[in-house]
Amino acid sequence: MRFSQAFIPTLKETPAEAEVVSHQLMLRAGMIRKLASGVYTWLPLGLRTLRKVERIVREEMDAAGARELLMPGVQPAELWQESGRWEHYGRELLRFKDRHDHDFCLAPTHEEVITDLIRHEVRSYRDMPLNLYQFQTKFRDEVRPRFGVMRSREFIMKDGYSFDPDDESSAASYQAMHQAYSAIFKRLGLNFAVVEADSGAIGGSFSHEFMVLADTGEDAIASCSCGWAANFEKAQVAPPRGEAPQAAAEVVRVDTPGAHTVEEVAAFLKVSPAQVAKTLVYLADGKPVAAMVRGDRQLNEIKLKNLIGATALELAPASVIQEVSGGPVGFTGPVGLNIPVYADQELYAAEALVVGANQGDAHLTGVHLGRDVAGATKADLRIIEPGDPCPRCGKEPTFARGIEVGHIFRLGTKYSQAMGAEYLDAEGQSRPIIMGCYGIGVTRIVAAAIEQGHDDWGIIFPLAIAPYSVAVLPLAIDGEVMETATKLYDDLSAAGVDVLMDDRDLRPGVKFKDADLIGIPLRVVVGAKGLKEGAVELKHRLSGDVDMVPVAEAATRLAQMVRRGGGRSL
Amino acid sequence: MRFSQAFIPTLKETPAEAEVVSHQLMLRAGMIRKLASGVYTWLPLGLRTLRKVERIVREEMDAAGARELLMPGVQPAELWQESGRWEHYGRELLRFKDRHDHDFCLAPTHEEVITDLIRHEVRSYRDMPLNLYQFQTKFRDEVRPRFGVMRSREFIMKDGYSFDPDDESSAASYQAMHQAYSAIFKRLGLNFAVVEADSGAIGGSFSHEFMVLADTGEDAIASCSCGWAANFEKAQVAPPRGEAPQAAAEVVRVDTPGAHTVEEVAAFLKVSPAQVAKTLVYLADGKPVAAMVRGDRQLNEIKLKNLIGATALELAPASVIQEVSGGPVGFTGPVGLNIPVYADQELYAAEALVVGANQGDAHLTGVHLGRDVAGATKADLRIIEPGDPCPRCGKEPTFARGIEVGHIFRLGTKYSQAMGAEYLDAEGQSRPIIMGCYGIGVTRIVAAAIEQGHDDWGIIFPLAIAPYSVAVLPLAIDGEVMETATKLYDDLSAAGVDVLMDDRDLRPGVKFKDADLIGIPLRVVVGAKGLKEGAVELKHRLSGDVDMVPVAEAATRLAQMVRRGGGRSL
Repeated sequence: MRFSQAFIPTLKETPAEAEVVSHQLMLRAGMIRKLASGVYTWLPLGLRTLRKVERIVREEMDAAGARELLMPGVQPAELWQESGRWEHYGRELLRFKDRHDHDFCLAPTHEEVITDLIRHEVRSYRDMPLNLYQFQTKFRDEVRPRFGVMRSREFIMKDGYSFDPDDESSAASYQAMHQAYSAIFKRLGLNFAVVEADSGAIGGSFSHEFMVLADTGEDAIASCSCGWAANFEKAQVAPPRGEAPQAAAEVVRVDTPGAHTVEEVAAFLKVSPAQVAKTLVYLADGKPVAAMVRGDRQLNEIKLKNLIGATALELAPASVIQEVSGGPVGFTGPVGLNIPVYADQELYAAEALVVGANQGDAHLTGVHLGRDVAGATKADLRIIEPGDPCPRCGKEPTFARGIEVGHIFRLGTKYSQAMGAEYLDAEGQSRPIIMGCYGIGVTRIVAAAIEQGHDDWGIIFPLAIAPYSVAVLPLAIDGEVMETATKLYDDLSAAGVDVLMDDRDLRPGVKFKDADLIGIPLRVVVGAKGLKEGAVELKHRLSGDVDMVPVAEAATRLAQMVRRGGGRSL
Repeated sequence: MRFSQAFIPTLKETPAEAEVVSHQLMLRAGMIRKLASGVYTWLPLGLRTLRKVERIVREEMDAAGARELLMPGVQPAELWQESGRWEHYGRELLRFKDRHDHDFCLAPTHEEVITDLIRHEVRSYRDMPLNLYQFQTKFRDEVRPRFGVMRSREFIMKDGYSFDPDDESSAASYQAMHQAYSAIFKRLGLNFAVVEADSGAIGGSFSHEFMVLADTGEDAIASCSCGWAANFEKAQVAPPRGEAPQAAAEVVRVDTPGAHTVEEVAAFLKVSPAQVAKTLVYLADGKPVAAMVRGDRQLNEIKLKNLIGATALELAPASVIQEVSGGPVGFTGPVGLNIPVYADQELYAAEALVVGANQGDAHLTGVHLGRDVAGATKADLRIIEPGDPCPRCGKEPTFARGIEVGHIFRLGTKYSQAMGAEYLDAEGQSRPIIMGCYGIGVTRIVAAAIEQGHDDWGIIFPLAIAPYSVAVLPLAIDGEVMETATKLYDDLSAAGVDVLMDDRDLRPGVKFKDADLIGIPLRVVVGAKGLKEGAVELKHRLSGDVDMVPVAEAATRLAQMVRRGGGRSL
């Protein structure tokens, strides 16, 4: 492609609307433009990268035996009412009425539609295993869309669904997708981690997130050299080592006037915050429960929710706290509390703890959970922290930040039971189909790749998803320079390399800047000076390395580099 | 692909919901399934054909210098208010509010969004010509969706838009798209016609429809060996030959009791219906006008509307007819009528006509338009009919039926003026950008191809868009037969041929029926009997021709046939 004909409207200034670097660079590189809040147009350059991502995902899904189909974006309310999500999905589900006053929604996900398809098309265990996927434009009416295409309202997802007759087959389908996803992110040229994620009621290891590592990532993740990795907020915490100690002191009520926070109480009583236990009152599906963690730790609400098996979990209001504890907010403690108490396992490693006394300006000291709160449930309830050992091997994990770009999940029979998707087994028995679902945020991957790969000059794309693999920059647009550049451009194109030749009548500096900005991995400068030596200048965008290459060898050598780096013509 | 792994749920029975053959066959072949009225899921087999259509369109658009982008489906009301279409589009435009109570719509077309993009990105005449296109899911809330994906509510269009600084450049852009479209439909392997279409206020030859010819087509079209072709309802009618005759009789008022229709009046007065003139009263933008055609002809309302330059045209109610003519409905005539009269050119070839007398049960005879209705406007106002000469060369055109699958149209400055999309010309003057728009109904093409290509046994796809080019049918699924079939399957796949091997453990008859049903152009049967002679049976789906081909040559010969026929691996 010649730059003059490519419609790549680059910008010199960083638009004020963009907060994160990928959003800034995608606007500046002429990859996207905003139409409305969380709604973007993909310009030709951005679309090229999007299509390359899509192709790699498609090839690996096909290779894993999944079959592509295309489901509608506009969906009838009836199906969502059957699954129960019409009521429970919340306002991210955009609902509307058609001209005949029938209720519809704009799909944020496709479990209902695929389950409806399958209940009509799958009859026997012989029809499975089956794995179907699509690339589809989704809409989620986010309350606060932000970061460009990283968290937009309209976006493209690859969503796939597996259908199996039994747990063993379903586990194999899950495993095949785990492998396919790993192959996909490897081929995309991204540095990524696979982490255990919350799998809710299903449990076990049937939920993994695929995270592109980037310092700017929204999620913190922990990973260990033993292979264990998990989303920071969901990571299992290893139980404390050694035997739990006996009680070491009597329980004593002490006045703690003016001390509200853990730090204030600890300072007042001259103990460390680790010796203080926080007691938080929640409403779990409307019923009050208490949860305890050490004063210097953070409660992991997802763990608490899963432990209780609750659908909704929220902090209780002051009135409820007063009612169940008899004391004001900030002084709740487990002793004498008549609601279920869930205590983090680590608290049992303490001989004596400071807890709230369930009355204002007072705490109890010398509390030993085993002795004084015998009815409490001991569990892993806190968020992992630097210093915690790996829950699998005991070594110290490393912590990093990441952007979630894929999520695989075992659905079990949630939708097949709600919607009557059954099959006949070998004995002629009707059974619910076991489902899995597998998502990749295709548009998001483009932004994540840029969060991972950029410098002060612009984007650094991996070869596999760069909009063009090679930029040819003639320093003049006529004479021998342009002739040599054109020949190189033609030779590279003929060799199946995606090449962008900057034929614009502009100063070289502008061309250099644009090539760096839009992230082309390999740049060839053709200039009169080099040609005197029969050479062109080859620069690697990532390493910054510069080579002089004989003109006659340039096309062959570049084509080889592109092929080796996983670059393919769109 | 092995059939057992392909998810192609064929049906033996024709579903009752399907009225037209393409809809019936797409359901039976397992290409689509209905989700809601006018909303369909594309199953893997259908999606393969859709993607092949899409690829051919993309390649020809790129070759013509157009650049692909991707605009959003959800669009803010503000842009549609700027263009004026928020108010005027009617109920096909699906409108809704987002969670912040802002008005949005689901795009039926993208003129507003592309004009908004261009007014920000195009500044100078140097930025043009520019041609941008996309493949996009559109939604039109049709009052009565029907015929499967032929007239659905959610569908995929290729819509493109050109931007030019002047008329000459815009005409060249239009011409390039005309050529690209012709190349597209040729490569798709479809029998098609390009017809002049209504271009409304722009006039001239700046609107063409591309029609796939099929007996079941909704549109009638006329075409001539000289190259002229037009949509039946919009085709120009040649003026009558020879001089207009003088008046031959006096005007006489005659009673015509009980004669209401043209036929009744003609019979009563013993003249032919061609000697009677119908006078119809319309409201053009609310103002009454009269339009006249011969009694045996049909008025073309589009021609009348364009002639007047009216936005809305509808037949006047009885009260208006009574008021303007003084007589009841059915007896209106042009003599003495005090509203504008538009008369079809053909009426001026009559010496004497019978017309309504503007009073009940009475007509005038001996009317000569030139003498008796001097204020009338003479124009081409009727629909072309068999027997009419070609308006370009005078020979007799042929008539056929077709399905509209493409439409190219010069928009002029309609949107650029309404939305302020201007550029600076070489003199620094600000001018509105001249636009064109170019649509192809991608999903509709699949149905149109089937309307054109089918027989009693199923679909007959052209090689270029068949989901698979070759079907390999082993008559046994083990032993030498299956080994030979598998080798053939592997060799064809390696040669880049899309091949479907029916490895299902089913009777041969079922496999034959399915292969015919889903429209695979070439079928190879591998059976024990043929293998004794070292041959396999090759059958052409279209011609029905059967050849015995030596096993050793089969793959090479098939690959050659596929290549020659424009078949390519997806």
